[in-house]
Amino acid sequence: MSTLKGSCIFGQSGGPTAVINASAQGVIQAALAREEITRVLGAAHGIKGVLNDQLYDMGKEDPAEVELLQYTPSSALGSCRYKLADPGEDDTDYKRILEIFQKYDVRYFFYNGGNDSMDTCNKISKYMQSVGYECRVIGIPKTIDNDLMQTDHCPGFASAAKYIATSCAEVWNDCHVYDTGMITIIEIMGRHAGWLAGSAALAGLTGCGPDLVYLPERDFDMDRFLADVQDIYKRTGNCMVAVSEGIHYADGTFVSEGDVEASDGFGHVQLGGLAVRLAERCKEATGAKVRGIELSLLQRCASHLASETDIMEAKMAGRIAVESALDGITDKMVAFECTRDGGDYRCEPVLIDLTEVANAEKKVPQEWINAEGNGVEQPFIDYVLPLIQGQPDRPTDRSLPRFAKLKKIPAEG
Amino acid sequence: MSTLKGSCIFGQSGGPTAVINASAQGVIQAALAREEITRVLGAAHGIKGVLNDQLYDMGKEDPAEVELLQYTPSSALGSCRYKLADPGEDDTDYKRILEIFQKYDVRYFFYNGGNDSMDTCNKISKYMQSVGYECRVIGIPKTIDNDLMQTDHCPGFASAAKYIATSCAEVWNDCHVYDTGMITIIEIMGRHAGWLAGSAALAGLTGCGPDLVYLPERDFDMDRFLADVQDIYKRTGNCMVAVSEGIHYADGTFVSEGDVEASDGFGHVQLGGLAVRLAERCKEATGAKVRGIELSLLQRCASHLASETDIMEAKMAGRIAVESALDGITDKMVAFECTRDGGDYRCEPVLIDLTEVANAEKKVPQEWINAEGNGVEQPFIDYVLPLIQGQPDRPTDRSLPRFAKLKKIPAEG
Repeated sequence: MSTLKGSCIFGQSGGPTAVINASAQGVIQAALAREEITRVLGAAHGIKGVLNDQLYDMGKEDPAEVELLQYTPSSALGSCRYKLADPGEDDTDYKRILEIFQKYDVRYFFYNGGNDSMDTCNKISKYMQSVGYECRVIGIPKTIDNDLMQTDHCPGFASAAKYIATSCAEVWNDCHVYDTGMITIIEIMGRHAGWLAGSAALAGLTGCGPDLVYLPERDFDMDRFLADVQDIYKRTGNCMVAVSEGIHYADGTFVSEGDVEASDGFGHVQLGGLAVRLAERCKEATGAKVRGIELSLLQRCASHLASETDIMEAKMAGRIAVESALDGITDKMVAFECTRDGGDYRCEPVLIDLTEVANAEKKVPQEWINAEGNGVEQPFIDYVLPLIQGQPDRPTDRSLPRFAKLKKIPAEG
Repeated sequence: MSTLKGSCIFGQSGGPTAVINASAQGVIQAALAREEITRVLGAAHGIKGVLNDQLYDMGKEDPAEVELLQYTPSSALGSCRYKLADPGEDDTDYKRILEIFQKYDVRYFFYNGGNDSMDTCNKISKYMQSVGYECRVIGIPKTIDNDLMQTDHCPGFASAAKYIATSCAEVWNDCHVYDTGMITIIEIMGRHAGWLAGSAALAGLTGCGPDLVYLPERDFDMDRFLADVQDIYKRTGNCMVAVSEGIHYADGTFVSEGDVEASDGFGHVQLGGLAVRLAERCKEATGAKVRGIELSLLQRCASHLASETDIMEAKMAGRIAVESALDGITDKMVAFECTRDGGDYRCEPVLIDLTEVANAEKKVPQEWINAEGNGVEQPFIDYVLPLIQGQPDRPTDRSLPRFAKLKKIPAEG
């Protein structure tokens, strides 16, 4: 292994999570501790910060504030949704990135994001190799959607899952107070994978879980859905349903399609309004009182209810990225290999090729969804439950959250 | 003072809160401890349980589960929205209540609810007096809306306020991750009083608070609202707004009027959909990316984020109700008298006449709202902040909430 001396850039990309800053903390602390890394630069808004020469000198931050990043939701450095062009078609961005890397003598690039971000990592690394600029690139996984390939799970998912399960259990209680009955639809994030929607079923362990759970891994049938709801409502006088925002009919049309707003930078359709729409259909079909609840951004930023396991693993992913790069490794993403033998959960970091994760999506296995397509099976519960364990001792100030306050001092060129 | 021996009935009414069951615990434990009270009966769904002879024998519950009520959101016994007729016009219900009181030798009636419920208490007590049936009636306040007269505040409000402030602070972080800017509208409960919407401003103490807060105590002007938002969005590239569901134009029309669904049992209009509607207006006016978030039921059942002060006070209110009745008092509601001298908060229970609270609403003082009508002043913050203090050591099972499990054994007649 060759010793490679130089700066590192760390960036955050895509939708934030409750623990993405825990990974930032892992990277920053590990990088500052190693003398091979001459300067730790944080990119403002991910790769955009590199393109715009907006880099912060993380070595000038108060270490106590860096230590608070693990309890601070969302992207402390700012995030972006920016898709790099194919370098064969347009290499403008790549030339600019090279220029910035040269300007700051950047030899390490750590990028924290989902599958689109791993694609970004991969393209940058390939370009640097093609022009003979030595730079080690490691991706750090992040997504509440939990849809990255080749890893047991992704940092950020578990905290969102815990928030969803806890909120569903609480709302269940609220929806069962009147003897007049009610149908409640809870809309949960997850465009193409049902990991988060399925996690609503964890609420069942408290005795207060949804009656029905719909994942995008199965085609949605409105008539069957209404029949399912009607059946439970008739029998019990109540019905609580968890649905993924991404449920779609057999022809691929999203059930929420009418509420399409705009598309984000990656060309994804932005969904929303589904809960209210389904609630209305249930009202027409049953005459029941209904309520649609969209967990919206709340589910991905609820650091007050983060999983301690998730925080620890997110930090570890950041640290391992730095250590691996210093060991001479490049073009990899940190992934997790886990065992759950008899309730004894273990999580080990491993490294996988960026090309294996870029632009691919991991879905909930069909056999973890019940035959009726309206609930999850025990293996799903056994998979998620260890991930949500532990309540961090989060710092508060006057009983309100105490988030990290970064100075964000621009790096001198 | 005469010793009055007999059963007591406890009931829960109106919309539930995160701590209404803490008051139930206070009543049940205090009543079970006193031998003058021969039996502690819980009414299923408030006064409806009395009318339907659906009463549970609370003495048969596991004391350990009763102890968990303080951490269990929503109404454990079930709630109702049932308005008793004027006894002069129709005394059917009152005759039935008398019949049930006689059947179970009920001499104490404790009712936990908002102003409508205090009206119920008042009517029942007056009727019992008119027919010469001795029964002591004490109301226990409860409402997230915090709109009861003659009390510093109401149990349930502070926990909702804490959830709202914490969630706003977290969402603020999420809404500031992209450099493309965003306008976020957060819709908060509170039909006629802005206590909850105003509490969003507590998030400002974390450095991550809403830019604008609109309370129903001021007439809403759409043009001024859009100008306010546009101004902040232009200057900062972002804007976060907290609005009460009850904001209305000068003519009294609710801004959300178009989304009226139905009215509840008390004739109140049910509001909703406001956040999305306002977000759409902001999008038209600015072209910005927008998001509407409705905190919905989440804000009133989030026991995982309850204020310990609120829990303790809710329990105290229940206990004081029982002790006061045993002291010979009737026709009162337990209220709080508080001092906040130099940050030293003290809360003392006092008793006020039911007639003083029934059907009246306490609003946020005009001088606590800023001149522009788009924010709250320091006295509002100083009022709310002591109430949200303390994080309870809530029990969990596998990192999910462990709620009280009541057996609900029907009382023998």
